[in-house]
Amino acid sequence: MKPTHIEHIGIAVKNLEEAIPFYETLLGTPCYAVEEVADQRVKTAFFMVGQTKIELLESTDPEGPVGKFIEKKGEGIHHIAFAVQGLEQALDEARNAGIRLIDEQPRKGAEGLHIAFLHPKSTFGVLTELCEDKNKSN
Amino acid sequence: MKPTHIEHIGIAVKNLEEAIPFYETLLGTPCYAVEEVADQRVKTAFFMVGQTKIELLESTDPEGPVGKFIEKKGEGIHHIAFAVQGLEQALDEARNAGIRLIDEQPRKGAEGLHIAFLHPKSTFGVLTELCEDKNKSN
Repeated sequence: MKPTHIEHIGIAVKNLEEAIPFYETLLGTPCYAVEEVADQRVKTAFFMVGQTKIELLESTDPEGPVGKFIEKKGEGIHHIAFAVQGLEQALDEARNAGIRLIDEQPRKGAEGLHIAFLHPKSTFGVLTELCEDKNKSN
Repeated sequence: MKPTHIEHIGIAVKNLEEAIPFYETLLGTPCYAVEEVADQRVKTAFFMVGQTKIELLESTDPEGPVGKFIEKKGEGIHHIAFAVQGLEQALDEARNAGIRLIDEQPRKGAEGLHIAFLHPKSTFGVLTELCEDKNKSN
């Protein structure tokens, strides 16, 4: 596989209402979307920096993945997402390379992307997302 | 300030020799540089993904910043670096916005960049680097 770019970086925060104005100042650009992803039990806020989005993640459920992450590690960088073309094939390649997958099949993420996570135990501690936007050529 | 793009993402690993071939497979691109940054007590390895570099960091000293990070949190994402034009001015703006700085003045980082870190306590847990490449317009 050969990701075309870093699609987004996910940052776990306790409170979006506090984090959004801070990141608007730091990044010099407005938050352009807030979206709840029920499946992941998060509310997300997006900012564009060059090719890459900063995705702030507030947990909507202490037992959800971001809730548990904050409980264990505190606020901070949660995951990196690489944009790929052909997500199914990329997952096959990852599997064949011996990488442990969290998602065996693509599922739907924020912004209508098709996504799948690789397990941090086989990626040197980095929760890694692969994602594909089928509406564009990346 | 308005960063132009994400210059790099730093990932702390225990062993570059193991991590480099893994990331070459994951990213479908060769490691293009290995460099020791004595000041930071790390050896670094770089990969290009779109506009952004992945910078693997192996500590050369258990008491250095990356050695301590791995001791405390294990391998994983260590920092995000935003490319800015006018680093001194960006630091002034950060200071004026009440952001705590690790580096009050720019210093030299890997690849000859001018860099400065913001403190994660004032950036929602994200160790944030600002950097400027004075040899190009970013």
